[in-house]
Amino acid sequence: MPEEKQLGITVKKEEDMPEWYEQVVLKSELADFSPVSGFMIIRPNGYQIWQTIENEFNSVLKKLKVKNAYFPLLIPESFFKREAEHAEGFAPELAWVSRKSDEAERLAIRPTSETIMYDAYSKWIRSWRDLPLRLNQWCNVLRWEVSDVKLFLRSREFLWQEGHCVYETERECEKESLEILDEYQKLAKNVLAIPSLTGIKTEKEKFPGAKTTYTFESVMPDGKALQMGTTHNLGQGFAKSFNISYLDKNEKKAIPWQNSWGISTRMLGAMVMMHADDKGLVIPPNAAEHKIVIVPIVFKGKSDAPDKVAKELEKKLESFNPILDDREEYTPGWKFNEWEMKGIPIRIEIGPKDVEKNQVVLVRRDTGKKEFIKTKDIEKEITHSLETMQKHMFTKADKEMKENIVEVSNFTEFEDAIKDKKMVKTLHCNSEMCELQIQEKTTATSRLIPFKEKADGKCVHCSKPAKEVIYFARNY
Amino acid sequence: MPEEKQLGITVKKEEDMPEWYEQVVLKSELADFSPVSGFMIIRPNGYQIWQTIENEFNSVLKKLKVKNAYFPLLIPESFFKREAEHAEGFAPELAWVSRKSDEAERLAIRPTSETIMYDAYSKWIRSWRDLPLRLNQWCNVLRWEVSDVKLFLRSREFLWQEGHCVYETERECEKESLEILDEYQKLAKNVLAIPSLTGIKTEKEKFPGAKTTYTFESVMPDGKALQMGTTHNLGQGFAKSFNISYLDKNEKKAIPWQNSWGISTRMLGAMVMMHADDKGLVIPPNAAEHKIVIVPIVFKGKSDAPDKVAKELEKKLESFNPILDDREEYTPGWKFNEWEMKGIPIRIEIGPKDVEKNQVVLVRRDTGKKEFIKTKDIEKEITHSLETMQKHMFTKADKEMKENIVEVSNFTEFEDAIKDKKMVKTLHCNSEMCELQIQEKTTATSRLIPFKEKADGKCVHCSKPAKEVIYFARNY
Repeated sequence: MPEEKQLGITVKKEEDMPEWYEQVVLKSELADFSPVSGFMIIRPNGYQIWQTIENEFNSVLKKLKVKNAYFPLLIPESFFKREAEHAEGFAPELAWVSRKSDEAERLAIRPTSETIMYDAYSKWIRSWRDLPLRLNQWCNVLRWEVSDVKLFLRSREFLWQEGHCVYETERECEKESLEILDEYQKLAKNVLAIPSLTGIKTEKEKFPGAKTTYTFESVMPDGKALQMGTTHNLGQGFAKSFNISYLDKNEKKAIPWQNSWGISTRMLGAMVMMHADDKGLVIPPNAAEHKIVIVPIVFKGKSDAPDKVAKELEKKLESFNPILDDREEYTPGWKFNEWEMKGIPIRIEIGPKDVEKNQVVLVRRDTGKKEFIKTKDIEKEITHSLETMQKHMFTKADKEMKENIVEVSNFTEFEDAIKDKKMVKTLHCNSEMCELQIQEKTTATSRLIPFKEKADGKCVHCSKPAKEVIYFARNY
Repeated sequence: MPEEKQLGITVKKEEDMPEWYEQVVLKSELADFSPVSGFMIIRPNGYQIWQTIENEFNSVLKKLKVKNAYFPLLIPESFFKREAEHAEGFAPELAWVSRKSDEAERLAIRPTSETIMYDAYSKWIRSWRDLPLRLNQWCNVLRWEVSDVKLFLRSREFLWQEGHCVYETERECEKESLEILDEYQKLAKNVLAIPSLTGIKTEKEKFPGAKTTYTFESVMPDGKALQMGTTHNLGQGFAKSFNISYLDKNEKKAIPWQNSWGISTRMLGAMVMMHADDKGLVIPPNAAEHKIVIVPIVFKGKSDAPDKVAKELEKKLESFNPILDDREEYTPGWKFNEWEMKGIPIRIEIGPKDVEKNQVVLVRRDTGKKEFIKTKDIEKEITHSLETMQKHMFTKADKEMKENIVEVSNFTEFEDAIKDKKMVKTLHCNSEMCELQIQEKTTATSRLIPFKEKADGKCVHCSKPAKEVIYFARNY
C-alpha cells in the first residue's frame, strides 16, 4: 500500500476553516505553495477549472464582440503617475525590475494594465470610426502587498482577465459595466454553482481611478465576504490623463468614456470554500474536466468481468471524459477516498454481482447517495445526475449564503452579528468617515450597496438619515 | 474619406525585407511597439492566431495526456545556480525584481521555468506511481538580452508554452522529445502552412543544461533560418541538481529522466515573413478567425439589393465567421485594400449585376484570382477554395524554402552561398572550434543536423573527416 500522502483531511470544516481550506486545496492537488513567499503553483486539477472559466468567458466575449489581446508585463513608472488616485492606490503593490540602468526609468510588473493599455489606446484612437474599442487580456498580475498567502484567495501573483473598453458615450460604457457584472454572476452560478450578491462599491472601497465600481461577492460559510470580480465605469478620468481623444462625426475633438472589469483565480477559492466538505473537494459538474470516475471492483483470483465492463464503459461514456481507475495496487476503498478527495462529481462502481445483474452503482459526490442503475440506462442516468447535482449545489449554497446574512437596525445588533460570523445588511448614511469608524470598531468593511433598494430610516452607526442600504462583512 | 492610416505598404518585400516586415505587422494590426524598449503589444489580429495555435496544441496535449498547470513568475536566484550550464546560459537574460529587502534572496522574472518547476517536482515525485509526470504551461517569459526588437521574432517578453515531463526511462523521455517535435512540425504545416526542417542541434547550439536539443526551423525568403521551437532531452542532469528521485517497483531509489519543449509567438513572425506580400498580410485559412469578408457594392441612390444579399449571406455563412463590411463611409476599393492588408483569406463581392445573375465574386487573397460563382453553390465553393488555398500556400512556401537551400562541398561555395542569402547544406567534422570559426568568418551559425543522413566525405571548413551532415545559415 502506498505511503501516507493520500490521508484524508485531518480537521473539520466547522472546527478550523482556515486549516481545513488549506488541506483541501493541497490534498486535492488544486494548488501548492511556492518556495517564493506569497506565490502559488496552480496544479493541473486547479488549472483545468480555470481553463473552463476561460473558455466559458471567451464565448461571452465573442458574443459581446470583445477581442483578446496581450500587453507588456512591465510598465514605466511615469505611467502610474498620470492618474493620481490610481497611482496612490497601487503604489504599495508594485514590484520594480532592475537592470543595470539600461532603461531610462524604473519599470514595474503590472498590478493591472489600465496605464499601459490606455497609452496604446491614445495612439490607436483617432476618429469616431475607431470606437468602440473593446479589448480583453488573460494574463498574470502581481500585487506585492500580501503578507500571509492563502492559496487562490490571496497571493502576490494571480491569473485573471481584464477587459478595457472605450465608448463615445457614457451610456454605452455604463451599460456594459452592468452587462458584464451580470455575465460574471451567471458564470459563477452556471459553472461554479456559486451564488452571489451584486451592487455598487462605496467611494471608500471603489477602484483607484474609477467613477463607479460594481462588484459581485459571495458570503462564505464563515460569514466572510469574498469579492469575486468587479467592473468599473472609469468615466473620462483615464482618458484625460492618457490623452485619449477622437474626432467625432462633426469633426470636433471629443473625450471618450471607459470601463474596465476583471475576474481572477480567486473564484477557485470561493468554489472550495463553498462546496468542499470534510472528505475533500466537490467540483460542480459544469466545472469538472472529468465528470465521472469508473472503479471496477475485482477480487483476486476471481472473475475479471468488472474490469471488462469498466473498459467498455470508459469508451461508451467518453463524452463525460471518464477516469478509469483500474490500478491493481490500490484497494477500492482507497480509490473511493482518493476520488472523493479530488471531488470528481460521480463515481461508477462495478462489482461482480453488478455485472451479473446488468447494473452499476452510481454515487454522487455532493450527497454521497448511492443508486443502482441499469447499465443500459447509464448515459441518461449520469446526464440526469450531473444536472441535478449542479442545481442542487447552487440551491444549497444559495440557502447557506442567505442564512449567513442578517438584517440589523442598530449598532449593537451589527456588532453581535459580525461577532457571530455573519454578513450584515443595514442602512448607512454614506459618509466615508462613518464607514471608516464602523470598520475600526468591527473589522468589517462595507461590501456593496445593492441595486434598487430604498433606504428608509437612520444610519445604523451615526443615526443620521440613511442614504443607502448596505452590506458589511469581514472579508477575504 | 478617412485619413491616411490605411495607406498600403510603402516598400517591396524583395527590396527591403526588414522595413517591409515591420510595416506589414504594424499595418495589418498584428502587433505594435511598446513604450518600453524591447517589448511588444500583441493586438487582436495577432492574438487570435496565437489562440488558434494554443487551441490546436491543447488538443495535441490532451491526446498525449499532458496536463496544463501554472508556476510562479518569479524564481529565486539560488535555483538558477543549481544547474551550472543552465545558470551560465541564462545569466545575461535575467531581470531582477527589487522590493525593500523583504525577500531573503533576489528574484528573477522567469526566462524559462525548468528550475522552479523541478523544485516542485522534487516534492511531488516519491514513487514510480507518480511517474510519468507530464505538465505544460502557457505563459509569458522574459529574456533581457535583446537590443533591437523585431515584432514577434525578437522581443524581451514573449508568450509560449513550455512542456516538462519526467519519466522512469530515457527511452520514453527521448521518444516523447521526438514525438513532440513531429507534432510541432505538423502544427506549423497544418495551421500556418509553414514548411520546416527538423534535426539535432550541435553541442555548441543546444539548450543550456540539455543532453540533446531537437529543433524545427524554417528558411525565410531572405535565406535566414528561423527557429520556431525546440524539444530537449534533458537527461538526468536537472533531476540530480534538483534532487528529483523516486522509489522504483523494487523499492530502490532511482533518478528519473526529463524532457522539456516549447513553441512561442515567434511562429507568427514566420507566418508573416513566409506568406505576406506587397499588399500586406496573407493569413493561411486554418489560422484565420474570419475566413471571409463580404463586401456589398452599392451605388448611391441605386438599388440596395447587394446590401440585402450580403446580410443574408452573413447569416448563411456563419460557420466561416464572416466579416460583413457594409460601412457607408468607405468605398469598395478602400475596403478591398483594407482586408487585403489584413490578410482575410477570401473576399466575396456582390454588385447589382451579381444580384441579378444570382452570383457573387470570390477573390482569393493569396493568388488574387477572381471567380464568379453561383450563389447557391457558395458554401461548397468557399470550403473548396479555403482547402485549396491552405494546400497551395504550403506547397509554394515549401518550394521557396527548398530553393533557398544550397548544397555545397567546399568553403568558397559555402561563403558565396551565405553571401547570396541562402541556407547551406554541407558536411562537418563536429568540432565546436571549427563551428565557431565558420561562424566568425561568415556570421552563419549551425542550424541543425538532419536525422538519418549519412556524412560521407570531408568537413567543408577544416577538411577533417566529416562526422555529420549539417545546415548552416544566418538566423533570426
